[in-house]
Amino acid sequence: MKKLLSGYSKKAGLVPGSIVHVGDRKAERPKITLIKYNRDRFEEKVVEKVEDCFDGDQDVVTWINIDGIHQVDIIEKIGAEYGLHPLVMEDILHTDQRPKVEDYESYLFIVLKMVWYDDIENDIRLEQVSLILGEDFVVSFQEAEGDTFSAVRERLRTGKGRIRSMDASYLAYALMDSIVDNYFLVLEQVSEIIEALEDRLIENPVSETLEEIHDLKKEIIYFRKSVWPLRDVISSLERSDSPLIKDTTLVYLKDIYDHTIRVVESIETYRDIITGVMDLYLSSISNRMNEVMKTLTIIATIFIPLTFVTGLYGMNFEYMPELKYEWGYPAVWIVILLMSASMFVYFRKKKWL
Amino acid sequence: MKKLLSGYSKKAGLVPGSIVHVGDRKAERPKITLIKYNRDRFEEKVVEKVEDCFDGDQDVVTWINIDGIHQVDIIEKIGAEYGLHPLVMEDILHTDQRPKVEDYESYLFIVLKMVWYDDIENDIRLEQVSLILGEDFVVSFQEAEGDTFSAVRERLRTGKGRIRSMDASYLAYALMDSIVDNYFLVLEQVSEIIEALEDRLIENPVSETLEEIHDLKKEIIYFRKSVWPLRDVISSLERSDSPLIKDTTLVYLKDIYDHTIRVVESIETYRDIITGVMDLYLSSISNRMNEVMKTLTIIATIFIPLTFVTGLYGMNFEYMPELKYEWGYPAVWIVILLMSASMFVYFRKKKWL
Amino acid sequence: MKKLLSGYSKKAGLVPGSIVHVGDRKAERPKITLIKYNRDRFEEKVVEKVEDCFDGDQDVVTWINIDGIHQVDIIEKIGAEYGLHPLVMEDILHTDQRPKVEDYESYLFIVLKMVWYDDIENDIRLEQVSLILGEDFVVSFQEAEGDTFSAVRERLRTGKGRIRSMDASYLAYALMDSIVDNYFLVLEQVSEIIEALEDRLIENPVSETLEEIHDLKKEIIYFRKSVWPLRDVISSLERSDSPLIKDTTLVYLKDIYDHTIRVVESIETYRDIITGVMDLYLSSISNRMNEVMKTLTIIATIFIPLTFVTGLYGMNFEYMPELKYEWGYPAVWIVILLMSASMFVYFRKKKWL
Amino acid sequence: MKKLLSGYSKKAGLVPGSIVHVGDRKAERPKITLIKYNRDRFEEKVVEKVEDCFDGDQDVVTWINIDGIHQVDIIEKIGAEYGLHPLVMEDILHTDQRPKVEDYESYLFIVLKMVWYDDIENDIRLEQVSLILGEDFVVSFQEAEGDTFSAVRERLRTGKGRIRSMDASYLAYALMDSIVDNYFLVLEQVSEIIEALEDRLIENPVSETLEEIHDLKKEIIYFRKSVWPLRDVISSLERSDSPLIKDTTLVYLKDIYDHTIRVVESIETYRDIITGVMDLYLSSISNRMNEVMKTLTIIATIFIPLTFVTGLYGMNFEYMPELKYEWGYPAVWIVILLMSASMFVYFRKKKWL
Amino acid sequence: MKKLLSGYSKKAGLVPGSIVHVGDRKAERPKITLIKYNRDRFEEKVVEKVEDCFDGDQDVVTWINIDGIHQVDIIEKIGAEYGLHPLVMEDILHTDQRPKVEDYESYLFIVLKMVWYDDIENDIRLEQVSLILGEDFVVSFQEAEGDTFSAVRERLRTGKGRIRSMDASYLAYALMDSIVDNYFLVLEQVSEIIEALEDRLIENPVSETLEEIHDLKKEIIYFRKSVWPLRDVISSLERSDSPLIKDTTLVYLKDIYDHTIRVVESIETYRDIITGVMDLYLSSISNRMNEVMKTLTIIATIFIPLTFVTGLYGMNFEYMPELKYEWGYPAVWIVILLMSASMFVYFRKKKWL
Repeated sequence: MKKLLSGYSKKAGLVPGSIVHVGDRKAERPKITLIKYNRDRFEEKVVEKVEDCFDGDQDVVTWINIDGIHQVDIIEKIGAEYGLHPLVMEDILHTDQRPKVEDYESYLFIVLKMVWYDDIENDIRLEQVSLILGEDFVVSFQEAEGDTFSAVRERLRTGKGRIRSMDASYLAYALMDSIVDNYFLVLEQVSEIIEALEDRLIENPVSETLEEIHDLKKEIIYFRKSVWPLRDVISSLERSDSPLIKDTTLVYLKDIYDHTIRVVESIETYRDIITGVMDLYLSSISNRMNEVMKTLTIIATIFIPLTFVTGLYGMNFEYMPELKYEWGYPAVWIVILLMSASMFVYFRKKKWL
Repeated sequence: MKKLLSGYSKKAGLVPGSIVHVGDRKAERPKITLIKYNRDRFEEKVVEKVEDCFDGDQDVVTWINIDGIHQVDIIEKIGAEYGLHPLVMEDILHTDQRPKVEDYESYLFIVLKMVWYDDIENDIRLEQVSLILGEDFVVSFQEAEGDTFSAVRERLRTGKGRIRSMDASYLAYALMDSIVDNYFLVLEQVSEIIEALEDRLIENPVSETLEEIHDLKKEIIYFRKSVWPLRDVISSLERSDSPLIKDTTLVYLKDIYDHTIRVVESIETYRDIITGVMDLYLSSISNRMNEVMKTLTIIATIFIPLTFVTGLYGMNFEYMPELKYEWGYPAVWIVILLMSASMFVYFRKKKWL
Repeated sequence: MKKLLSGYSKKAGLVPGSIVHVGDRKAERPKITLIKYNRDRFEEKVVEKVEDCFDGDQDVVTWINIDGIHQVDIIEKIGAEYGLHPLVMEDILHTDQRPKVEDYESYLFIVLKMVWYDDIENDIRLEQVSLILGEDFVVSFQEAEGDTFSAVRERLRTGKGRIRSMDASYLAYALMDSIVDNYFLVLEQVSEIIEALEDRLIENPVSETLEEIHDLKKEIIYFRKSVWPLRDVISSLERSDSPLIKDTTLVYLKDIYDHTIRVVESIETYRDIITGVMDLYLSSISNRMNEVMKTLTIIATIFIPLTFVTGLYGMNFEYMPELKYEWGYPAVWIVILLMSASMFVYFRKKKWL
Repeated sequence: MKKLLSGYSKKAGLVPGSIVHVGDRKAERPKITLIKYNRDRFEEKVVEKVEDCFDGDQDVVTWINIDGIHQVDIIEKIGAEYGLHPLVMEDILHTDQRPKVEDYESYLFIVLKMVWYDDIENDIRLEQVSLILGEDFVVSFQEAEGDTFSAVRERLRTGKGRIRSMDASYLAYALMDSIVDNYFLVLEQVSEIIEALEDRLIENPVSETLEEIHDLKKEIIYFRKSVWPLRDVISSLERSDSPLIKDTTLVYLKDIYDHTIRVVESIETYRDIITGVMDLYLSSISNRMNEVMKTLTIIATIFIPLTFVTGLYGMNFEYMPELKYEWGYPAVWIVILLMSASMFVYFRKKKWL
Repeated sequence: MKKLLSGYSKKAGLVPGSIVHVGDRKAERPKITLIKYNRDRFEEKVVEKVEDCFDGDQDVVTWINIDGIHQVDIIEKIGAEYGLHPLVMEDILHTDQRPKVEDYESYLFIVLKMVWYDDIENDIRLEQVSLILGEDFVVSFQEAEGDTFSAVRERLRTGKGRIRSMDASYLAYALMDSIVDNYFLVLEQVSEIIEALEDRLIENPVSETLEEIHDLKKEIIYFRKSVWPLRDVISSLERSDSPLIKDTTLVYLKDIYDHTIRVVESIETYRDIITGVMDLYLSSISNRMNEVMKTLTIIATIFIPLTFVTGLYGMNFEYMPELKYEWGYPAVWIVILLMSASMFVYFRKKKWL
């Protein structure tokens, strides 16, 4: 549950706009990657100091990717270079933002949530990705080094597709697209877990399954909470009249919007299904209880009256004529068999057997 | 659950707009049917190569129907001929789109879901149908060869109704109408299954029924997910000011919109009813449990005290005066009968018998 | 459940706008009633052939009422006379339309649902009523002969109220008002059924009650489905700028709109209440189960230990000193009474007795 | 449940706008109170005949309050004097209107619901209050004589606050405000009932509590139904551009709107809480059932095996060596004590004891 | 539940706009703090009489903070000085307002709810904070002396951050921000309580836990009720075109809006989770019941038949041949062991053991 709120209590009481890193994942050292390209050119290098990125190259798209945001001075230098608002720098560092887009005229500030499924902890993990989209540059901030953007990087390297001939807003789109595509991978894993749960439930409902369902439900609630605002982010990008978003990019944003809707709808669907699974579990429990009770009832209903009969002739009265009769004992057996048989018929009629 | 996501993980990481077929159903060979008609003329042929369709005929409506979309080059050739955007071609191939309509000025791109009930698997099946509506042509893509459009084809052949004297947008309407009409067939089958379930439930609630309800609920959730966006599709077609939609067609779109609303409302209604059926099941289980428990309680409550009485006189104390009395045994019988009778009266009063 | 879908599957595959009657209720022969009136004049007759209605009378309001719509030629003749769109004629015949209003400039086409409670089948029945409102005429179509409109007819005959001095749109309002007023009668019957159910539930919850609740819930779901769109119908009539709706009629439409809202809200309220009744039923079942279990537990908890005690001294060991003591038997009785008494106190403390 | 619909079935079939009183509460005789005031003057009298109110006084605000609306001629005379629309007069008499406001240009017609808690019947009671707001007069209609408006009357008499120096629309506001303030009293009583219910539930859940919860839930549903439309009433008064609402009054309407929202939100909150109480009840039942079952299980699980042991040595076989041993009987006691002890340990481990 | 309504019943019947304090928390004496600052100057003093604050200083921002609002004359004096509307003064005193913002042109009136978690009572506590924002002054009213604003005061004192160089609207923002930041602290505590509840539930569900869940649910409902309107407050401040809100402050309001959304979403999430916890509790109860029943059933099903067998040979018939056989007793033992073993196998197969 901590992830819902992480950082806010640390920050409460600070000066708004104060640049403090709030987050747990710390990459060893922030890794700064600089890529410059246009239709004809492609240059990629890992730089040590962020200042090396600001060389005022013309006619190229510059993409600065920073893995690890715990070194505050890097963000401050980038902020100074590109004239970022203090609140933007604060939001980059506070990795508990809602996905959002903010238009600061000379640049757009976009916050997204990367998501992946942690197989070991059986947890859905979130990481904040912030993008600064300017006229001819994109700066991307990730909490830790990951390979989310490697496909985009590869496409830039090889010049495959139309990416090299497009502008910075298309690069921003490509980065967002690779994040949204990632959601589908997580959804697929969630879907597999649900299916596995369903199978196990029907075979043998145990109380551990219940906890698993509860945990999964919570994971989906958090997932939904992180993805839900994305809809508005993409749709406000689409409708924005910022000149930074080129018309050629707009149609791609429509495509990404469709994907986002699909993700959100799928999460809703999983919520519905997992609620159904919970019902299934509870019904299974009821069913098994029913079966247990039926067994008990059948046994008790047959044997308790019989025991009474035997008890009857176990009494020690001196004057019990039946005890003297030679056919007394066989008669009791006949009574016992008749009683059992009629009970059996009764249970059959009731469909309990 | 796979159908919710199929294809996305395969695609994750690819170049956006990359034309790769994502889908499972593969017709043996794509079948291309070309129909040309106007008020006076009707021509229909199955062509081998898609190029044969592009002969620039004037004054006719051209309908190219492609059954099977796994051969990418066909889509590419059509894309080249009609100037389709790469994303459109991608969406035709990725059969996991949400129903949508996109206006590319020179043509409209419409994605719908065909739906039918698979009697063997007891499954609702979905298939993507994409339509390209241009000034005087319609291109329709189906995942596999089916006979959905055979009624439209028949009407074109015979010239029945007003279809031959109308334009391409009316043809698109007719195709959409035949898809929406199909939904009603599926709904009817769903309704029959629910009724059958209800009947079985009341007679004999077993745990297999529970699983069936759960599965049906899931099917309806998926069905709803596929049909829901259709409302917006049709209504945005209606409100669109695209010159491709002729005024004479608009009133028919209003009609199809009504049908769509009816489908959506029916699905909602089924959801409500199936929730009610689930409640009915759970209540039946509770009821039966109650009945079982009552039986046990009646038997136990009558015989356990009686057994105690017999146990009492089965004790072997030397000094138990009752055992010596001649009327001891009959007295015990009287006690037993009185106890049983009073229990019987008590249960009657409680309405347990 | 059939009523949700009736007709659509019959129609699937037909030419849109094809005039086929889809519906089950067939009056023996369609009955055509012609009424003409103005402030000074009133004329009413049953005509054999629909053509007799078209005599081009001036300065009167003409009301043609057709009971029974299975004779397609009558609708076709009216369609020809008043220039109705083929889709309108289709919708009159297909009695499974949603309530709606369509503005065809020279006339308004209004579809409503008449509703009544079938005491014999314990069913809410629906019937489609279609109205054509023109400049100086109203044509009304009912599925079967009924007396819904008899009050309107009576007011026209006697000239009571303002109806004779008003125009055709007021007549249409009066007809709609009599349909909506009818809803309240059905609602009242539903309310009585719910009250009866509640009373029975509290006294004696049996599983038949459960089925009744389930059926009533379904009836209310269908009722709601039919009435819900009425809100939009009336409100779009109110807001429509069609010159066919006179200003003097508008204020009455506002009144009918209020009634419609009341009906819809009442249905919602009944849904809520019936859900509450279901909960009440389930809780009653739980309560009774609890009572049953308590009885069993009390009996078993008192007598099982006692039976053990008697069993103890029913053993046949040779060396059991207690058996020889003269006070052995009374001592056992004292033990038994003490055990019973302490159990009784325990149950009292637990509030089980 | 009758109150949901009262009157409508009586009215069904009547001429719309027919002035018939529909309602149950009949004051002995309608009481007509006339108040005239301005900054300098205040006059109050009870009049016998309504005509005495219409004396065309200038420069004063006239407030006619009518307690009891069953004498139709009074409403008709007022209607004639102030030119009320027939539907307005109908709505005043039919006390089952939804709260609403209607602008008839020369006057506003406002319908509200007065609400009070009937301590004897444990019922929330509703009464319709209708207001006619004209340029310099307010006419208020109540179903029965009450003291709701006594505070307003007192303020007018004493000239306290700003009311005497304000216009008719402020008087209308003051009347509405006293009605809305009344809602809070009812809400407070509801809150007390809920708290009392909660306390009783936790101590001892009995089935009467269940019925009380169910009844309270229904009361709240009806309350909500009556108050809900008030929001729209007040907000449409606020936004209305009727010259009858003076600007000085507008700010007070905003205040009353805030109160209405608070009432509606509180009702919603109570709904949520009462649902929670229902859950609490059901859980308590489950908890008690659990406790009952545990008691039974502990007793049965300890004594049933012991009884078997005693039964074993109660058998009458001739060759049972144990019976001859001198230590046989003490050995059985040891077995019995060991079995009891191990069961006790088992239950402790399971946390059942 | 009182906190929902506190004060309203006291007020019912009073003159609207009457200035009466409605609230329970009374600070010993209202404490008035005056702070004046601009870029160069900072002055802070505790004043005895509120008149000392009105000295018409130019070019500074004046912040008057009043802790404790039970002394009505202070509010009246401030009202006179700044020309506050009577309703504003009423609302400051009535501490049961919904959060709201009202634009009175020369000043903005903002009502917020401060919230903190009372560790001793395990309660979420609310306190009303009212702000008056004028051209160059802010007046803040708190119910009791607290240290919420101490961080803001500290920043003003030290001149840290940009606060000293900004205008009055930034000060108002800073105060609101410190209130909203406080929400996160409460949310964090709520989250910890939920986690603790979950842990305890899984280990040992007792009925006290149920009450705790119920109480927490209610707390969250009230919390939500107080925070929900904040969204609209902040967003209407953001969209307001009041000249009192400077453009430089607007971007900060956007930031605070984001935080508010996060709070609201978190509360919604907690509601969902706590509902899940309730389900978990109920399922745990069912599970334990199941376990209890299984134990009972296993014991009873094994021993009841065995007891019958022993009872059989405890009968005292004279002619029971088995009793005479030397192998009779060992044979019974064999039967007993066989029956137990088969039962054991049966339970294993059923997975009850």
